[in-house]
Amino acid sequence: MDKILSKHNKNVKEWQKLKTSKGQKKENSYIIETWHLVEEAINYNQEIELILVTEEKYNFFKEKINDFNVTIISEEVANSISSTVTNQGIFAICKISYNYFEVDTDFKGGWILLDNVQDPGNIGTIVRTADAAGLKGVVFGEGTANMYNDKVLRSMQGSQYHVKLVNSSIEKVIEEFKEHEINVYGTELNPDAYDYTQIKPTEDFALIMGNEGNGMRDNLIKSTDKNLYIPIKGSAESLNVAIAAALIMFKIKK
Amino acid sequence: MDKILSKHNKNVKEWQKLKTSKGQKKENSYIIETWHLVEEAINYNQEIELILVTEEKYNFFKEKINDFNVTIISEEVANSISSTVTNQGIFAICKISYNYFEVDTDFKGGWILLDNVQDPGNIGTIVRTADAAGLKGVVFGEGTANMYNDKVLRSMQGSQYHVKLVNSSIEKVIEEFKEHEINVYGTELNPDAYDYTQIKPTEDFALIMGNEGNGMRDNLIKSTDKNLYIPIKGSAESLNVAIAAALIMFKIKK
Repeated sequence: MDKILSKHNKNVKEWQKLKTSKGQKKENSYIIETWHLVEEAINYNQEIELILVTEEKYNFFKEKINDFNVTIISEEVANSISSTVTNQGIFAICKISYNYFEVDTDFKGGWILLDNVQDPGNIGTIVRTADAAGLKGVVFGEGTANMYNDKVLRSMQGSQYHVKLVNSSIEKVIEEFKEHEINVYGTELNPDAYDYTQIKPTEDFALIMGNEGNGMRDNLIKSTDKNLYIPIKGSAESLNVAIAAALIMFKIKK
Repeated sequence: MDKILSKHNKNVKEWQKLKTSKGQKKENSYIIETWHLVEEAINYNQEIELILVTEEKYNFFKEKINDFNVTIISEEVANSISSTVTNQGIFAICKISYNYFEVDTDFKGGWILLDNVQDPGNIGTIVRTADAAGLKGVVFGEGTANMYNDKVLRSMQGSQYHVKLVNSSIEKVIEEFKEHEINVYGTELNPDAYDYTQIKPTEDFALIMGNEGNGMRDNLIKSTDKNLYIPIKGSAESLNVAIAAALIMFKIKK
């Protein structure tokens, strides 16, 4: 079994690059951390190239990871590749595979379309919530943060392996949903839009969530079947985008 | 009007301290940034000691802030007191006042009780959502991040001036709600708990949200009227705490 104890080792530098979009594209791999995520990647048959575990944690994890290539690392190396203040001493390098670039053959099961959603925590939380609400997938449209961004990976909490994640043009995907006669809903901060509590729950739909500050793009607002509004009772001007997505998903998904 | 252009000025060091719990306690003040928050503090009659504005932005804001003490600062000073990468050049130093230490005289209107909720973004989002759902207030219990933490302040988005925020012992507050015959609901990641969609909406209730990793403390779970569960359809193990709070609040608040 390989052992890498110095953070100046050239492999360590390569692993660090897998946290950037550029490095991920070049190697077609990304890095995850925490046992929860590594376990989910194993359970959902992701292509794992290498598992990294600290000397201290090896005995604890060894029975669960002995089917994989494993490299032992030092605490120093773990700290240099982790994105968190206190890491759990376990990482995996996985092949990029859940990025399909096509929604599906039938467009069924409920989808979220992200239009310029920028905060990685919001995006990851929306994916995790879409999983919990029983949706099929999430489309990462133009201007939306990279699905392999480490904050996105962490806040998805493993749901990236349960729902389909797709990079695509939102305009193109809207047209495809319409061709399949599936309702496309937008979201608007506009009391004249359609009250989301009045939507009858269905199995299949597409729901567009827009940018944190500016909402959906105008041309998209015009292309939907209905634009939904969440009635606000207090004095808040708006809801966080992940909260708004959750309220609508849990209401309209049958 | 005062002008402070060097970040080494002693006032600048004092302002920086207002971002820490220790500095806030000592001065009984805190600092906010962005025009949205400063405007909310003005509209909701917060006690504003001083407004700081950059030379570049002074002309833009001057008519809106001429009732207040204003100090002009340089970009360098603005960068040194801002918590964000790109600041808007406007800040206010406010007296701590929305920290009542007591819930209310009548305990009515719907309350969230935070038990060891630790992520500042989650806490701020819960306050913002409680505002939007028409609740009366949020209790910051033991182990919950400080309500003047700058990430909490930012993610509350001004809702700190619309709902009541209270520092108190959760145990004590639960007893008080019970004495007033108001239902106290807990939340549990346990399918045997009570399905939240079956709760009849009411004006008055207290809803406890627990720690991100560990949930509510066991002794609190035993002290509630009912513990609520959000049915999960997909493979996600749990929901983000702010998402769970939002789904329940919007469902049970009349």
